[in-house]
Amino acid sequence: MLAVGLMSGTSLDGTDAALVEITGVGPTTKVKLRRFASYPFASGLKTKIKAALAVETSDVEQICSLNFELGAIFGAAVVKICAEAKIAPQELTFVASHGQTVYHLPRPDRPGLVPSTLQIGDPALIAERAQTAVISNFREADMAVGGQGAPIVPYSEYILYRSPEQTRILQNIGGIGNATVIPAAGELSDVVAFDTGPGNMIIDELCRRFYHEEYDRDGAHGAAGQVNQTVLQKLLQHPYFARPFPKTSGREDFGSEYVDQIMQQFDLGADDWVATATALTAQSIAQAVKQFATAQTELIIGGGGSYNPTLVKMIQAALPKVKVGIQEDYGYSSDAKEAIAMVVLGNQTWHHQPSNVPSATGAKRPVILGRITYF
Amino acid sequence: MLAVGLMSGTSLDGTDAALVEITGVGPTTKVKLRRFASYPFASGLKTKIKAALAVETSDVEQICSLNFELGAIFGAAVVKICAEAKIAPQELTFVASHGQTVYHLPRPDRPGLVPSTLQIGDPALIAERAQTAVISNFREADMAVGGQGAPIVPYSEYILYRSPEQTRILQNIGGIGNATVIPAAGELSDVVAFDTGPGNMIIDELCRRFYHEEYDRDGAHGAAGQVNQTVLQKLLQHPYFARPFPKTSGREDFGSEYVDQIMQQFDLGADDWVATATALTAQSIAQAVKQFATAQTELIIGGGGSYNPTLVKMIQAALPKVKVGIQEDYGYSSDAKEAIAMVVLGNQTWHHQPSNVPSATGAKRPVILGRITYF
Repeated sequence: MLAVGLMSGTSLDGTDAALVEITGVGPTTKVKLRRFASYPFASGLKTKIKAALAVETSDVEQICSLNFELGAIFGAAVVKICAEAKIAPQELTFVASHGQTVYHLPRPDRPGLVPSTLQIGDPALIAERAQTAVISNFREADMAVGGQGAPIVPYSEYILYRSPEQTRILQNIGGIGNATVIPAAGELSDVVAFDTGPGNMIIDELCRRFYHEEYDRDGAHGAAGQVNQTVLQKLLQHPYFARPFPKTSGREDFGSEYVDQIMQQFDLGADDWVATATALTAQSIAQAVKQFATAQTELIIGGGGSYNPTLVKMIQAALPKVKVGIQEDYGYSSDAKEAIAMVVLGNQTWHHQPSNVPSATGAKRPVILGRITYF
Repeated sequence: MLAVGLMSGTSLDGTDAALVEITGVGPTTKVKLRRFASYPFASGLKTKIKAALAVETSDVEQICSLNFELGAIFGAAVVKICAEAKIAPQELTFVASHGQTVYHLPRPDRPGLVPSTLQIGDPALIAERAQTAVISNFREADMAVGGQGAPIVPYSEYILYRSPEQTRILQNIGGIGNATVIPAAGELSDVVAFDTGPGNMIIDELCRRFYHEEYDRDGAHGAAGQVNQTVLQKLLQHPYFARPFPKTSGREDFGSEYVDQIMQQFDLGADDWVATATALTAQSIAQAVKQFATAQTELIIGGGGSYNPTLVKMIQAALPKVKVGIQEDYGYSSDAKEAIAMVVLGNQTWHHQPSNVPSATGAKRPVILGRITYF
């Protein structure tokens, strides 16, 4: 059957839509990407979402309205990708929509608050625009059984990448690096997922400060510089790397403040800083995943970092016995990965089957994720 | 099959739960109330909800958390009513939960806002507590096709009260009065629903000001006073009563400010004020429904106002040809009516059938309301 997966991430770039052919359920699931597109948000909408994300600038009226406004935009994305693929939206069995996360509170630090998460983009609006059933709200049920509601891609990764002979490690490199380890011939309950530490966050921040560039395009600065081993070893003593699994990291660990601090502490040239930060990401990934690497292990890199060849080479060098590749080497697409994952999760919901990964989220047990709005 | 309907109204009193036996679907639906209970909110929770309702005091973190907190409370209500009825929650086929409305914006009056509604009390939390499927979010789909998302009880009223010989008018008297007219042998599309004007709102406000009482218990003050016909005729000139259908009213028409205004304008004794306000409610109801009354018409009064015999007698006097009764005369319960309606709507969703009433909400067409969280 045909389905569209919709993903709208924390970067607020826009709506990712994946038109997918999917058959089977659970371990028999097979997917084929028919088309992928990214529809950018208008700048006014981006401003609205930013206001809704922050405690200081948010209110109930704005959230109520934006939930409907985003639903209509997600619905339009479905109509658009179907038009581009020359199919009628009615040919879809379902749309699986992640929604826009406006708040995620897995461990509240004030009394009166409970663990919770909030994704908006109302499914009724999507259903009306796309004239099809919509599956949405994939994080709540996991949190209802004590999980963190994240990560939610490991189920899809397990289904699509597991192998009887190879241990496969899916290494995503966005701002933060996160790994999903799928042991050879492992069960879903053997899957481990955690944040490895910085992804592109430090590299990007250095590029902004030194060159007013958003990121190290093609890893050019990293390649031109020299890794300072003394500084690298110091940076690897960051307490995050020694913390036990499962663990999550963020801007509070490796963001702008951290970059201020290390730049005060050490004196390096611009390219050398980028090279050393690239090595930090590579080494922290290698050290974290090494313990899971058996004789037959593949590390499959996705996310923006997979397009930085300097970084990919450094990871390969740090893991000589592991076969290191990128999503595209396996016929997949980094860009489409999360939108495809939504279809895999939606397919489970459609068949009333669970799709959280308790070993990754900390949930007490497997649960059916999402809810269905019928059309 | 067995189902529980949950309703949590704008009064913020607590959770109404109705345990119902339901069979059939659409016109063949039959319901039998097995048990009804009202579980009050703790005062701290009431304060939290009030803060979340107002633009000034609401924010995204609070709404995110309260959505989960209320879900758990609704789930606990299901567990409780099942325990009281000595059944296991697993015997339920579904729970149908209205949720707590924190914002309803059918006609936004500022640019940048879209028609929308927001009910919270996450169904995943209810499903986890009650160990059963949950149907929720009954207003969004109607709004997605241009309706106002309200009223949503008329479908249930049509199913439960329609008659081949009698025109039945369901008159609810809460703060505001609202009527659902079901013509004899009428189709669903013949159903008309609208707000008749003030319900208990003015009477209650007068009782608070004169006697520090929350309402006119047993209609005692109204019965002791004298209706001032001159004042009554003036009050009946309020522009709301002349507005065409469909129309909705609220606190902005007949709230505290309105009471300030009429008390400045006219000088009456306390009981005479209550008697005159009671007559205003009675007359406005009678004038509004008169045009629908045929030879065989019954007016069935529900809501708090049905327990005010002075008001009921005045309505009967104003409609001499109509048989006036209260819900209890028909073996129903005013208190349980909305929670039962949720089960009727949930049953439609369960069978993938529509249950909005376009002639009442203004929607472009019938749609399936609600979404299903499977357990």
